[in-house]
Amino acid sequence: MPTAVAGKGLEGVIAANSGICWIDGEAGVLSYRGIDIHELAENSSFEETTYLLWNGMLPNRLQLREFTAQLAAARSLDQRILDMLKSFPRSATPMEVLRTAVSALSFYDADEKDNSHDANVRKAYNLTAQIAMIVAIYDRIRKGKEIVPPDQNLSHAANFLWMLNGVKPSETATRTMDLALVLHAEHELNASTFAARVIAATLSDIHSAITGAIGALKGPLHGGANEAVMRLLLAIDKSGEDPVEHVKNMLANKQKVSGFGHRVYKTEDPRATHLRQMSEQLGTDAGQPKWFQMSRAIELYINKEKKLNANVDFYSASTYNTLGIDIDLYTPIFAVSRIAGWAAHVIEQLDDNRLIRPRADYIGPVYPSPYVPLERRG
Amino acid sequence: MPTAVAGKGLEGVIAANSGICWIDGEAGVLSYRGIDIHELAENSSFEETTYLLWNGMLPNRLQLREFTAQLAAARSLDQRILDMLKSFPRSATPMEVLRTAVSALSFYDADEKDNSHDANVRKAYNLTAQIAMIVAIYDRIRKGKEIVPPDQNLSHAANFLWMLNGVKPSETATRTMDLALVLHAEHELNASTFAARVIAATLSDIHSAITGAIGALKGPLHGGANEAVMRLLLAIDKSGEDPVEHVKNMLANKQKVSGFGHRVYKTEDPRATHLRQMSEQLGTDAGQPKWFQMSRAIELYINKEKKLNANVDFYSASTYNTLGIDIDLYTPIFAVSRIAGWAAHVIEQLDDNRLIRPRADYIGPVYPSPYVPLERRG
Repeated sequence: MPTAVAGKGLEGVIAANSGICWIDGEAGVLSYRGIDIHELAENSSFEETTYLLWNGMLPNRLQLREFTAQLAAARSLDQRILDMLKSFPRSATPMEVLRTAVSALSFYDADEKDNSHDANVRKAYNLTAQIAMIVAIYDRIRKGKEIVPPDQNLSHAANFLWMLNGVKPSETATRTMDLALVLHAEHELNASTFAARVIAATLSDIHSAITGAIGALKGPLHGGANEAVMRLLLAIDKSGEDPVEHVKNMLANKQKVSGFGHRVYKTEDPRATHLRQMSEQLGTDAGQPKWFQMSRAIELYINKEKKLNANVDFYSASTYNTLGIDIDLYTPIFAVSRIAGWAAHVIEQLDDNRLIRPRADYIGPVYPSPYVPLERRG
Repeated sequence: MPTAVAGKGLEGVIAANSGICWIDGEAGVLSYRGIDIHELAENSSFEETTYLLWNGMLPNRLQLREFTAQLAAARSLDQRILDMLKSFPRSATPMEVLRTAVSALSFYDADEKDNSHDANVRKAYNLTAQIAMIVAIYDRIRKGKEIVPPDQNLSHAANFLWMLNGVKPSETATRTMDLALVLHAEHELNASTFAARVIAATLSDIHSAITGAIGALKGPLHGGANEAVMRLLLAIDKSGEDPVEHVKNMLANKQKVSGFGHRVYKTEDPRATHLRQMSEQLGTDAGQPKWFQMSRAIELYINKEKKLNANVDFYSASTYNTLGIDIDLYTPIFAVSRIAGWAAHVIEQLDDNRLIRPRADYIGPVYPSPYVPLERRG
């Protein structure tokens, strides 16, 4: 019989051993494989970070070159996936499309029936390359634009922007996207990663696990929050109101302001530090400082009034907006990055697996309740 | 910081309050909304059981009539879903297809953007009707057969068999399928249901939650086990070996025999009691008792040698086989039934939601590990 009653939402419960990510929520520390996120943000790339997450150590020059080449070589989608993307109604949101297309990718993956460690690493390369492609390609399709073929000479971040926009991205845009991908790549047992592990632990396939993770990321209490932040900024801009007054009214009406607070961090989310800088820099460079300024004013007010800190989602909104990215791509871009962490966790789960199957505390009708025959029911 | 260290796989951890299902694993009791599964198995139908799971009480005559009519009226698939099913490669397994098609259903559900209780109940009707249709239709498509249109005058079980086989099912076949659907409809926080709740708890949509649940059910440690049982029976039959000798060799070679043991039940799985009866009865009626006999011999041996009891999967295998159902439809049929429980749990989760976000016990490289610049790596 069950012995441990957990906090609601499993708060504070240790659900797995993991060697991938260490967070100290009190001190505001995030690290991948022991390396501080600030070091990675300043020095690393998405490719190097993904190698680190999957292999547990930084690559040497040759390993990084090979890894980068393999990831670029995986930029390929079966023609039937492209046809499927074209057949979807234009009203389908990018997250619904990504969830559906990633599920369908298993049809065409040569390793679909092989759930070994090595096969899952191969599938992780494919999924990492393919998720970025699907997000970019569906956005082109729904806008009636030509699909842009991948460029294997570009980095993961640059190729994504290239396939999305059809123009070679500026150095600033590439660096910004790369940094965003590094910052979002991994975050321990967040809801989507935990969903992926629950699914993988039945010994189901990695496509099932990642499809489930995308479904979880879609939620406004998880990846969907960055879209909610931008919708708030746009609403404030349109209304011409003072941002602080607007947010004050929201709080008075018991409305939630997205992008603040975090289950784990009790101090500043270390990712927010970099996204705030990026948002400010990009805004200044683009001669469009208003989104940063508006965000900063809201942040200071919420800090003071609610003692809540900006989280990873808050400054991603103004950052992506300044890069000219559509709002409903913010969460898909989160997936473009987080696949690195999801894959690391699925593989780690399968390397030492146990079915994840908790219990519920029963609060329903007393047992045994009678089965009253139909003719005697009121 | 985390306070509670859970057993591996969250064994024995209470992860949610729930009024849907009560299990006493020591006593071998399973109940839906307080009513014993034996009573439901003997007296209820899938429609009535689903009403009970969703509404918390048995329907009266009028309620049952309305519920049955609404579920039958939901037997409709957008033409674009049918086209998509036809476009899938014939090598795609039914579980991959179901996962992908259920994800795509959200494109065409009028309530997709409405996550209210009432909208999710409407979507639950649709999903329950549609999952059965997709399983039946894809099986027809892959076999090059005509799609059979749904018959709104048939029960859920009978309509499924009708759409699958293109002939009106016998009373025995209908009763068997209906009983299988009642027995598989709900089982507390099993892995797929728990995955659905983790996904829903981000306030994502019910299609995301059910898509993730299908991915989890696919795993051989969960729904996939019934297929593994039948493959074992077929292998034994083909080899001409004595079933007990075969299983003895498997155990000697440290191979797992699927269909035995359960995380929760320490005694007989009460569902196995009914499936055993059904398997024997059907085998006798069909003049094909060998699958039951083989199963029974294996069960008695594993009981004795390993002190493990047959679970829900063990006798579903021979039962479905005698009904003439293809092996790779056994797990999809589990989903045809379990959607009732999944939907009940998603709706219950959203009625009193909290993000499900546990922590990990970090076992990786010490923090802070240095970020060694590329040129200084070995």
